[in-house]
Amino acid sequence: MERIDFQTEPDRYRHWRLRLDGAVAHLVMDVDPAGSLFEGCELKLNSYDLGVDIELADAVQRLRFEHPEVRAVVLRSGKEGVFCAGANIRMLGRASHGHKVNFCKFTNETRMAIEDASENSGQTYMAAVNGACAGGGYELAITAAHVMLIDDRRSTVALPEVPLLGVLPGTGGLTRLTDKRRVRRDRADVFCTLEEGIRGARAVQWRLVDEVVPPSAWEQEVETRAREFAARSDRPTEAQGIALPPLRRVFADEAISYDHVEIRLDRAGRRAVLTIGAPARLPADLAGICAEGAAFWPLAMARELDDALLHLRLNEPTLGLLVLRTEGNPDTVLAADALLVAHRSHWLVREIRLHLKRVLKRLDLTARSLIALIEPGSCFAGTLAELAFAADRAVMYAGSPARLHLGRLNFGAYPMSNGLTRLQTRFLGEPASIARAEESIGEALESDAAEALGLVTAAYDDIDWDDEVRLMLEERASFSADALTAMEANLRFAGPETMETRIFGRLTAWQNWVFQRPSAVGEHGALKRYGSGQQPEYDPERV
Amino acid sequence: MERIDFQTEPDRYRHWRLRLDGAVAHLVMDVDPAGSLFEGCELKLNSYDLGVDIELADAVQRLRFEHPEVRAVVLRSGKEGVFCAGANIRMLGRASHGHKVNFCKFTNETRMAIEDASENSGQTYMAAVNGACAGGGYELAITAAHVMLIDDRRSTVALPEVPLLGVLPGTGGLTRLTDKRRVRRDRADVFCTLEEGIRGARAVQWRLVDEVVPPSAWEQEVETRAREFAARSDRPTEAQGIALPPLRRVFADEAISYDHVEIRLDRAGRRAVLTIGAPARLPADLAGICAEGAAFWPLAMARELDDALLHLRLNEPTLGLLVLRTEGNPDTVLAADALLVAHRSHWLVREIRLHLKRVLKRLDLTARSLIALIEPGSCFAGTLAELAFAADRAVMYAGSPARLHLGRLNFGAYPMSNGLTRLQTRFLGEPASIARAEESIGEALESDAAEALGLVTAAYDDIDWDDEVRLMLEERASFSADALTAMEANLRFAGPETMETRIFGRLTAWQNWVFQRPSAVGEHGALKRYGSGQQPEYDPERV
Repeated sequence: MERIDFQTEPDRYRHWRLRLDGAVAHLVMDVDPAGSLFEGCELKLNSYDLGVDIELADAVQRLRFEHPEVRAVVLRSGKEGVFCAGANIRMLGRASHGHKVNFCKFTNETRMAIEDASENSGQTYMAAVNGACAGGGYELAITAAHVMLIDDRRSTVALPEVPLLGVLPGTGGLTRLTDKRRVRRDRADVFCTLEEGIRGARAVQWRLVDEVVPPSAWEQEVETRAREFAARSDRPTEAQGIALPPLRRVFADEAISYDHVEIRLDRAGRRAVLTIGAPARLPADLAGICAEGAAFWPLAMARELDDALLHLRLNEPTLGLLVLRTEGNPDTVLAADALLVAHRSHWLVREIRLHLKRVLKRLDLTARSLIALIEPGSCFAGTLAELAFAADRAVMYAGSPARLHLGRLNFGAYPMSNGLTRLQTRFLGEPASIARAEESIGEALESDAAEALGLVTAAYDDIDWDDEVRLMLEERASFSADALTAMEANLRFAGPETMETRIFGRLTAWQNWVFQRPSAVGEHGALKRYGSGQQPEYDPERV
Repeated sequence: MERIDFQTEPDRYRHWRLRLDGAVAHLVMDVDPAGSLFEGCELKLNSYDLGVDIELADAVQRLRFEHPEVRAVVLRSGKEGVFCAGANIRMLGRASHGHKVNFCKFTNETRMAIEDASENSGQTYMAAVNGACAGGGYELAITAAHVMLIDDRRSTVALPEVPLLGVLPGTGGLTRLTDKRRVRRDRADVFCTLEEGIRGARAVQWRLVDEVVPPSAWEQEVETRAREFAARSDRPTEAQGIALPPLRRVFADEAISYDHVEIRLDRAGRRAVLTIGAPARLPADLAGICAEGAAFWPLAMARELDDALLHLRLNEPTLGLLVLRTEGNPDTVLAADALLVAHRSHWLVREIRLHLKRVLKRLDLTARSLIALIEPGSCFAGTLAELAFAADRAVMYAGSPARLHLGRLNFGAYPMSNGLTRLQTRFLGEPASIARAEESIGEALESDAAEALGLVTAAYDDIDWDDEVRLMLEERASFSADALTAMEANLRFAGPETMETRIFGRLTAWQNWVFQRPSAVGEHGALKRYGSGQQPEYDPERV
């Protein structure tokens, strides 16, 4: 398979159309059946593969930054009689295990980004379900804050994965049913085993949708509801959006370079070394931030880091180790943070902070060992210090030129999926440790101080540094990739769970398990036999 | 493999010794290397298989019921230089996937039972770690409320599964490290990749153990600490324990009969029909309960149900559907509940209620579809109504002779793993629905009322009952066993998560995933190659 590229833009979309109407945007799914990433997979009935979802993620992102005037977004279908049939089954039958797992992870992240827009950006998503809405299609619909279903006696919502395919609804559907929509668990059980789905009044009674609307009133009601949501938004009415231009990237054999992010690929060592550079210049004020737009360092860096992580996940699966480095002047990083603090109530700054939050979550959820190296000349400060706290380990050079700096943004701006900050997760149930760390804001912490505060895993002096780091990286690369993935998925998310961690932890782990089992992926399994006219053969043994 | 029997008693133990010393009991692990359930697996160094854990579970249970005078229990080893080496690797390499999954589940349940004793029975467990303590051995140790490690420069604690075996510590270790012992996540990462483990002061500093003790003071300190814990217990000092005699069971080809529980095995239909009978007689008062002891219906029924569930899990894996029935007079069930309410502060009644709680949790965690049939002549009342709320679906006969009765014990006595009652989980975030249900206590609910209260999934009248039930069971049996297992593991535990649900949901699901991967179980995988002198071969691809 060719390199999967996560960069796109509306002019290149094949599967989505964006229709703007003042405060309301219509995001119209109209999948090109011939546009699959997988040759020979026909994307019928608005079924999707990763390529379709990359466009969706791009549209969701652009709506936030390029369209401050949009206050409600209506998810809908451009096809007659079908909203969305979910993930393409032929693709699932053909894709490698790793692709399937990463496909599900990315689609889940995109759906969380939709919910984040509704909850935190004043851009509320609605789903206007006109036509059959099944599997991943329904899972997409229920990411919306409000789900409308046309009452035309044909349109249904369904999660037919279990009866039809022998796999789970893997994009958060089970968890959203019980936790978000509060569907009674026995009804959820019935619904998830009902191939034909549910429609009309029962869909409302069971809380599967929020309202059903007769066809005669459909367009009017969708419009009315969208305007109602738009009216409640706190987004500015007169603001100018900023453009998100294509990222400047150079792919070479052993390196990928962006403006602020550089990746060295060490295939023999099974690792990628990712270095983030501090800002070279910063605007003086809010007007300057708006003028810089996508060139403003926090946003530019976040977009690059996001793209780099996605590239490594999908295109470099054998690089199991991600070494996190920073380079530059920590004062400029802290100055950038100060701008994000001072102007936090401005819509653009809010979006930048929310984007940073999501990118850092993407890092937490990346199935690679993360090792931060806090070296001389590094700038793990404020927002960039989050990289060290996201890492499985952060080791620090014990000597005067290496420093760690905490900032205001380490104490609430970037919650993890579990709802806690990375420092709260690190110091679970220890508010005193967090308070001590907070008191150090403004200090340049040398390794002794950083160790005393519990902020780094270990410190090595100049005699030991090279050997210790080399041994650590070599040892890590020698372990079972699967065991590390599973271990990290557990250790990174201590403490409370949220719908989000339940989706990425519990639900995803079970789906990954099912995705390896003969009943799903074997020669006679459901994903292989789907559409062949032959019944799948299931191993009846329960575990 | 022969039928695995979960019934045992101290005289038959091959692997554990119980040494009683007034208020302190010493539970001594001394595994017979030749005593494995798997032929040819030598259980060296106190490594264990399911058979070893069945004895441990039995001992933990007997200590509660037979020894009210025991207020502290010391877990220790009878072998020189080794506490416990964890699960036997040769067994893991040889066992089927289903056996491994069920082995982990049962060992996890046993460890939860240990924690339940410390937290709720006034019987506090300590671990006195004298010797190497690795993998499942350390996971067992940290179920204790207090972990002591001898400081002899040889004894270490370790979780070497990831570096040594390419699997996870699968008995709750990762979750207990972060959530129970609050080990900092980067330290947990280091610890879990360190084959040789950690000892001495660093083990305390990292919170891996609670104290280290020099060899010269070891026995004295263990004794002192045990007496301290014993002194804090609320268990009675003068009470008489009750004996737990062997269960009366008859195994036939198509049925298993206990005194109060009957199982019909329908192998063609891939289901087991489990029927619980109401009590035929009940004691009048507390003295009568104590006199009846293990014959007191709630305890007798709970022990039988527990054994039946374990038997079905391990010995009947192709019966994917468990139909839950009850028979008898609901008034006598409610009368038994009334005794459990009236005498709840008595130690024996407390133990019976706690045992019922654990058995119902075992039901929740059983990877079979659970369908409750509320028929004429049934007695889903109070404690037995929990079966209907534990079920994935409960269907009710619509006609005068079928009734459902709620009782006081449905509102707090039997929390699930998620910390909520089954009704709270059913009505997540709807206190009004729970209040309405509570107001119905004392009423015999016909199907209309039960449906209106949201207590049953559906009701069918006499014309439809047989066909609807037959179709439901046949359809369920036709689905993918794996997909159902994964779906049920998600839908049953809505809402908040606890350490317990994190262990059974997140951790277990990841371990199940790893347990299928070539790096662990393939021809050249770590579990197969362990001890062969050959290095395992790992697939370097990350997902």
